[in-house]
Amino acid sequence: MNRGLFITFEGPDGSGKTTVSTAVARRLQEEGYQVLYTREPGGIDIAEQIRRVILDPANTAMDARTEALLYAASRRQHLVEKVLPNLEKGITVISDRFVDSSLAYQGCGRQLGIEEVMSINRFAIEGHMPDKTIYLDVDAETGLERIEKGRTYLDRLDQESRDFHQRVYDGYHTVIERYKDRMIILDASKAAEEVIEDAYNAVKGLLDA
Amino acid sequence: MNRGLFITFEGPDGSGKTTVSTAVARRLQEEGYQVLYTREPGGIDIAEQIRRVILDPANTAMDARTEALLYAASRRQHLVEKVLPNLEKGITVISDRFVDSSLAYQGCGRQLGIEEVMSINRFAIEGHMPDKTIYLDVDAETGLERIEKGRTYLDRLDQESRDFHQRVYDGYHTVIERYKDRMIILDASKAAEEVIEDAYNAVKGLLDA
Repeated sequence: MNRGLFITFEGPDGSGKTTVSTAVARRLQEEGYQVLYTREPGGIDIAEQIRRVILDPANTAMDARTEALLYAASRRQHLVEKVLPNLEKGITVISDRFVDSSLAYQGCGRQLGIEEVMSINRFAIEGHMPDKTIYLDVDAETGLERIEKGRTYLDRLDQESRDFHQRVYDGYHTVIERYKDRMIILDASKAAEEVIEDAYNAVKGLLDA
Repeated sequence: MNRGLFITFEGPDGSGKTTVSTAVARRLQEEGYQVLYTREPGGIDIAEQIRRVILDPANTAMDARTEALLYAASRRQHLVEKVLPNLEKGITVISDRFVDSSLAYQGCGRQLGIEEVMSINRFAIEGHMPDKTIYLDVDAETGLERIEKGRTYLDRLDQESRDFHQRVYDGYHTVIERYKDRMIILDASKAAEEVIEDAYNAVKGLLDA
């Protein structure tokens, strides 16, 4: 049996990642493709517990390196309990965010450095990089406008400054450049329906290849 | 003002580390030395939350790499919130366990490899290695006998096999060899009072140097 494809969706806040990736996964499932949609912590009990520590708004004293280690820990557990067992069964796994998010958010947003953050993620993922990554490209300003419109509850990350979001945006572009061969870049400033269509075609192309 | 000395106590389970290190710290404090005794998570709220995830006996499915990342995260937070601020005030910090414990327990006990576990700890500690480490040397068998006598509640680590404890013991000896210049090795098979006396003299010697 062939191993399933590991496809991730990435992009800054407000790029529409979750809306687009869930819609694409659902459509492919309806057409009979063997597709699992997930996002960290993905209902994995240990990973959920770790995420609660990260996102607790009371934890304002959390050091940026502590945060990066916790994301790597949560990622590890989600990978071994959910992603890998499904790939091994031949199922395509579509994950909303993965290692590139840490490179952009902790590496660049928190200014820890991409190589530093990659070092702990290398330990966490043991070579299991995505086969392909759909990057939803939207500028920081548009992304922020979209978040501010839709939200009522703000978690710790969302309280961060616009400077932080600009660094994440720039960071993603460094990451795209570094992992060119793996990236499929889509214009996510378009209407959601159009982005979903583009992403659907891109993923379907990979599955039918 | 001079930076305080960072002294760690290490040794396998049953080496008497906690008894000895607290007794030494108390005696030095009574003599007027500026000494802080601590051990991870050390009352640091975020680090305590992380430890609860690690030690929850219900989390039997925890991957060894997840565990190592969580220890590194807890270490990082304890370091930046408690160890470093005290060292900067000129206070001697005595810590019951630090990075060597992860090298021995996760690197060797869990067989992840010393260099692998060091890579994530390098990220966590950013060069803040202990100035000196008191290693309480006891063989795995004697260590295990001592634990089994004293305990009623067994946490997740204590349920591990004797093989695990033997690997930890052997791992510590590899770590001692690697960091020879930093190590002060004491025979911890002696009676507690004698080990305390030896450790007290060793640490006092460092403070008076």
